[in-house]
Amino acid sequence: MATITVLGAGMMGTAFTWPLVDNGHEVRLVGTPLDAEIIAAIGRDRVHPKMNLTIPEGIHAFAVHDLEAALEGSDAVVLGVSSAGVRWAAEALGRYLVARPTLPIVMISKGLEWADGSFSVLPDVFSKALPKEIAPSVNPVAVGGPCIAGELARRVDTCVVFTGRNAEHVARWKAWAEGAYYHVFSSADVVGVETCAALKNAFAMGVGFAAGLHEKRGGQPGSIAMHNYEAAVFAEAIVEMGRVVSLAGGDPKHAAGMAGVGDLNVTCNGGRTGRFGRWLGLGLSLPDAILRMEGATLECLEILEVMDRALRDLDAAGKTRVDELPLLRHLAAVARGRIESTAAMPFDRFFAA
Amino acid sequence: MATITVLGAGMMGTAFTWPLVDNGHEVRLVGTPLDAEIIAAIGRDRVHPKMNLTIPEGIHAFAVHDLEAALEGSDAVVLGVSSAGVRWAAEALGRYLVARPTLPIVMISKGLEWADGSFSVLPDVFSKALPKEIAPSVNPVAVGGPCIAGELARRVDTCVVFTGRNAEHVARWKAWAEGAYYHVFSSADVVGVETCAALKNAFAMGVGFAAGLHEKRGGQPGSIAMHNYEAAVFAEAIVEMGRVVSLAGGDPKHAAGMAGVGDLNVTCNGGRTGRFGRWLGLGLSLPDAILRMEGATLECLEILEVMDRALRDLDAAGKTRVDELPLLRHLAAVARGRIESTAAMPFDRFFAA
Repeated sequence: MATITVLGAGMMGTAFTWPLVDNGHEVRLVGTPLDAEIIAAIGRDRVHPKMNLTIPEGIHAFAVHDLEAALEGSDAVVLGVSSAGVRWAAEALGRYLVARPTLPIVMISKGLEWADGSFSVLPDVFSKALPKEIAPSVNPVAVGGPCIAGELARRVDTCVVFTGRNAEHVARWKAWAEGAYYHVFSSADVVGVETCAALKNAFAMGVGFAAGLHEKRGGQPGSIAMHNYEAAVFAEAIVEMGRVVSLAGGDPKHAAGMAGVGDLNVTCNGGRTGRFGRWLGLGLSLPDAILRMEGATLECLEILEVMDRALRDLDAAGKTRVDELPLLRHLAAVARGRIESTAAMPFDRFFAA
Repeated sequence: MATITVLGAGMMGTAFTWPLVDNGHEVRLVGTPLDAEIIAAIGRDRVHPKMNLTIPEGIHAFAVHDLEAALEGSDAVVLGVSSAGVRWAAEALGRYLVARPTLPIVMISKGLEWADGSFSVLPDVFSKALPKEIAPSVNPVAVGGPCIAGELARRVDTCVVFTGRNAEHVARWKAWAEGAYYHVFSSADVVGVETCAALKNAFAMGVGFAAGLHEKRGGQPGSIAMHNYEAAVFAEAIVEMGRVVSLAGGDPKHAAGMAGVGDLNVTCNGGRTGRFGRWLGLGLSLPDAILRMEGATLECLEILEVMDRALRDLDAAGKTRVDELPLLRHLAAVARGRIESTAAMPFDRFFAA
């Protein structure tokens, strides 16, 4: 049994402790500076206030100022921070990792960055932010595939893919985490898996338009009857996801598997991005739709901002044609406020790949 | 403008008349022997009783005994019969087609047959059932992609793919049918597209299990919280669909596009197969679940019976390994009554491709 420190006490970081505790590991859950209230609440009655669930026996909660104490004697670290928190985490853990550069790390954070003409997946962003002497030897394992935190914490059957450049670490994390309800597969294609994980939010927003449009036209909520629209957008999303994975240097087959199709499906059915897309489909302006989400992190807007810049550069460099990726371009234009959310979906330009 | 006869007045045959009439074609809707009540109802008040919609002006309805009159002067024929009706349609139209073997035909029927060690898609089943002298020259165009009939008839944006071995006929049907809301793409890979169209029903049944299982465990209907399970099954379905398409001789890329991902998505969200899967997930026995569907055609049971026989033969011939296609084998075993619908889903054998 291992001693594992989880940095980040949000929904997903906390949910990831369930399979670990069920496998008998000692888990130390450390809040980031943004998780102070969560850690305080767990200290009071062991109920996670955002998940509304009692956390398992055997989890020890720590505030961020106790990070060093939590790391003492840890065999491995889980990064459960948001994409915005990845550089903070590299700084917070850097000194500790200098002494232990081969420590197995797994990241739950999802995102994609674009700079100087290339994409970077978050495990690489994390490594690059570490002290120079250890950066090349730290290769965090990342997690892709369809997983809603609240369901994992209720032990719903969940399939995920662990991916990393250090095959031994991938195998070790798989052995630590997998169990009766948490089915772990593995892949060496970090770029392929993580690009899908980041892009699904962009496309889920567009799939969500159909529900809003239907209600706007007088349909009843719930009895959605624009499934043909929705399914065409979903299918084009998978086609375009494969194309972006190729552009990023990954294997497009992931788009058609667990990391692409699976994660897009779960995000549309159970995630907040679909609800945000519904508000846009109803005709709300971008700022009004954002307000309706009451401060929830909108990963779709983050990734669409990244893809908007990336496509501008890729087009200019002749690496993409302006007539390809019509859905992604349409969604980026909505997310950047250049066109109304109710602008006609460019169906006739779909499926050209 | 063309004069087009639609044989089969069920939901999909009738829905297909909307884009044709909107494009100004003269449409003659002919009921099969099973559609007598529908044709009578349309004759009374022009309301299609199953769709609960008034059919467009300009559609002329004919009973089956007036088929010859309807065909008189027709430029093209739409086969809107069920998969079980394809051979009947070949017989009913055979004599007429002998005189006009180059008449453009489009088929809406979906299905897959297995005999003598190979799969046959329905356009080929139809051709082979025609009089021998014309069989080789008749290559019906088939329709794949996500399309719920009731939505098409309400002019919801719909993307479909027309596929056929006669490229000129594919182009002609595309020109006749496409319009503001009916977006028609084309493919020469009949086997790839039609195999996806047939298989989606098998897999949609399995995706539907999650909703039933969730309710069985005390979850509220509607607030489904087994999305992780559902999404993993959905993703594995696309992986396995690609494999079966390859076995049938088509291009597996269709599984990841409109004909696979798109059609499975729409079938899960808006089709009866998902509802049937929900009854099974709730723990109803196969006969009880069938009873709950009140006589609705269950294409999932038909295709799973076909796949069950096909896999037995393919395994015996060494063309498939018994450890591949675990989801399809699981669903076939449920559909053939060999295991309970609540038997554990073989998640750990997924994603091995």
